[in-house]
Amino acid sequence: MRGKMKFGLNIPTRLVFGAGELKNIHTLDLPGKCALVVVSAGNSMKQNGYLNTLLNGLKKAGIEAVVFDRVQPNPIRQHVMEGVQVCAEHKCDFVIGLGGGSSIDTAKAIAITAAMGGDFWDYVQGGTGGGKPVTAALPIVAIPSTAGTGTEIDLWGVITNEQTHEKMGFGTPLIYPRLAIVDPELMLTVPPKLTAYQGFDAFFHAAEGYISQAHSPISDLYALEAIRLLYKYLPVAVADGNNMWARIKVAWASTLAGMVESTSCCTGEHALEHAMSAFYPELPHGAGLIAISGAYFKTFKNDVMKRFMKMAEKMRQVKSARPSDFLDALEVMKRSCGVDDVRLSDWGITMTDFDRFVDNAVATGGAMLELDPRFLNRQELLSIYMDSYK
Amino acid sequence: MRGKMKFGLNIPTRLVFGAGELKNIHTLDLPGKCALVVVSAGNSMKQNGYLNTLLNGLKKAGIEAVVFDRVQPNPIRQHVMEGVQVCAEHKCDFVIGLGGGSSIDTAKAIAITAAMGGDFWDYVQGGTGGGKPVTAALPIVAIPSTAGTGTEIDLWGVITNEQTHEKMGFGTPLIYPRLAIVDPELMLTVPPKLTAYQGFDAFFHAAEGYISQAHSPISDLYALEAIRLLYKYLPVAVADGNNMWARIKVAWASTLAGMVESTSCCTGEHALEHAMSAFYPELPHGAGLIAISGAYFKTFKNDVMKRFMKMAEKMRQVKSARPSDFLDALEVMKRSCGVDDVRLSDWGITMTDFDRFVDNAVATGGAMLELDPRFLNRQELLSIYMDSYK
Repeated sequence: MRGKMKFGLNIPTRLVFGAGELKNIHTLDLPGKCALVVVSAGNSMKQNGYLNTLLNGLKKAGIEAVVFDRVQPNPIRQHVMEGVQVCAEHKCDFVIGLGGGSSIDTAKAIAITAAMGGDFWDYVQGGTGGGKPVTAALPIVAIPSTAGTGTEIDLWGVITNEQTHEKMGFGTPLIYPRLAIVDPELMLTVPPKLTAYQGFDAFFHAAEGYISQAHSPISDLYALEAIRLLYKYLPVAVADGNNMWARIKVAWASTLAGMVESTSCCTGEHALEHAMSAFYPELPHGAGLIAISGAYFKTFKNDVMKRFMKMAEKMRQVKSARPSDFLDALEVMKRSCGVDDVRLSDWGITMTDFDRFVDNAVATGGAMLELDPRFLNRQELLSIYMDSYK
Repeated sequence: MRGKMKFGLNIPTRLVFGAGELKNIHTLDLPGKCALVVVSAGNSMKQNGYLNTLLNGLKKAGIEAVVFDRVQPNPIRQHVMEGVQVCAEHKCDFVIGLGGGSSIDTAKAIAITAAMGGDFWDYVQGGTGGGKPVTAALPIVAIPSTAGTGTEIDLWGVITNEQTHEKMGFGTPLIYPRLAIVDPELMLTVPPKLTAYQGFDAFFHAAEGYISQAHSPISDLYALEAIRLLYKYLPVAVADGNNMWARIKVAWASTLAGMVESTSCCTGEHALEHAMSAFYPELPHGAGLIAISGAYFKTFKNDVMKRFMKMAEKMRQVKSARPSDFLDALEVMKRSCGVDDVRLSDWGITMTDFDRFVDNAVATGGAMLELDPRFLNRQELLSIYMDSYK
């Protein structure tokens, strides 16, 4: 494997972690005087009072705030551009993303486009993206209300071009948030199913990053701890959303898994899932990952045997003698989180979609496919979809 | 314990880790155009060619370099001030520390004083330090040639005021190195005894940080991995200095332990040792720590029982049932590194020194003493010296 004892580490984000920390935001150094606050179009940030807590804190700190609340799950290019316009109208000098990955990733895309000018898609690498270099971005503050994406502490974002059906990752060190406030209190209201989907997203960031050819001693450390924590605490948080201790552990695991994304990289599983939710935007990202995970990981069972066994050991806390122990533990974890029944057909996906899914994954997620433990050919990629279908 | 699930993380240093990486320095982003290169007064950096490798790299990158080579082990205020003068004369805009902790810590002290003006001691907090706030520092690049201090990735430095016998730590986020190049090739020439002393310094950064009241989930993760690696690989590196794999593992453990210092904090053991080497500058820091470590840790055996057992488990890789397993494993590690025979009397220390040692530790290292698992009274501090004496 590449990069084993030569590696880098550079996560400049200042992390503030702890239940109740959002209401202390006025005590922190903030990177500007006028914030564009990006939240989802749904009501949860407002009804649960999180948006108010944030706005009150900004007021206390003497910082102006403009709310942009158009973001959808699976955020799209159009809303990025609307946000850029609001940002320009109010001369905002930094961007705050409050909410799930969609709000924070939209904030990241706005931060780039507001600083660089033009259209966001000009700066996307790969697919139909313009591929222009990004040399500036407004400072970003990330306040996740879900435990899953890790985007609060990584250099990545994902935006869908709704016209071309491309769900594209974009990344630059310039979009590491300056400040990440991870407050597990905000996560108490996430319903069980979404808690599970999002927690599995974090789990796969860790597991993919651990088997990725980009892994390193530091990403391994983060990944194995995230895997251990999620196996133990995600079922608890799913079963009882008010269990603060479990929420804290799952939130920390998700941030750790974000640090895996910043020190290693996701692999083909994410590329294959992005293709599915690009065509079926209703499919939650985590559900898509769960659906293909069994077939995906099984493909590499004999390529990274020791790594599979190590992951199994972290999960079960007993010695592992076979790589398939990891596959078994993964199935147990799905059952204990009540998501072993995810069916692609429930979201309208049919087997005739698989060809265009593979085309899309190769076109938009080629870099992740190259980091798989072994490079898969088209037939092998198709097989993962086929074996996952029910 | 304080701070368990509320914590922060913010290590902005860009780490480049790998054997042979120093010679690639010209490919990296460097934070200025004219470097003050701080190295020790000894010949090792020159004879081994490390200084030349660095200077050639800077030349290739089109960066001017001025060498300041007056630094002693246990670096002193006078040499800081001489370095500041050279820095000003040549209008250097950043500082590179190449060598052991003494060179890098001197570089850090110069970086502060060159940017702030006045005398370095004006900016030291505690003891006879002036306590002025530090608001600026020249950018720092750290290139360690030893595995021990972790200063390449922490916000601390230690300088001795030779007139007042104060060995004082100083710290500010402004002295996190912008760039740390950890190249284990530079460590192949460190003799066995020094390898052991320095490796134990790293071990105690991790072990103290793990039992410190300032510990957090992220510092725990770094600390336990450093402890595991050092127990396993330090004896190998001591026995065969040319074992590159062991050098790499020990170097990585030392950097991890530096990250512990940046996310948790050292405790009373370091305060007690600084007092000794302030009066006996010939005593290597690591040797002083080794000498008092048995008595120091034994004091807290019943205060942080689970943490002792967890450290023992990482060392021996078997379940631990008693806190004293850690004390036993520590003695085994000393023997296997050939440093179980360190005697304070060999450096001229006598039992009549202990009173002034305690006075000095309380005056200069009070903040570290406050982070002990339990606050020790004067009699208990004296007992640690007494029990360590031979």
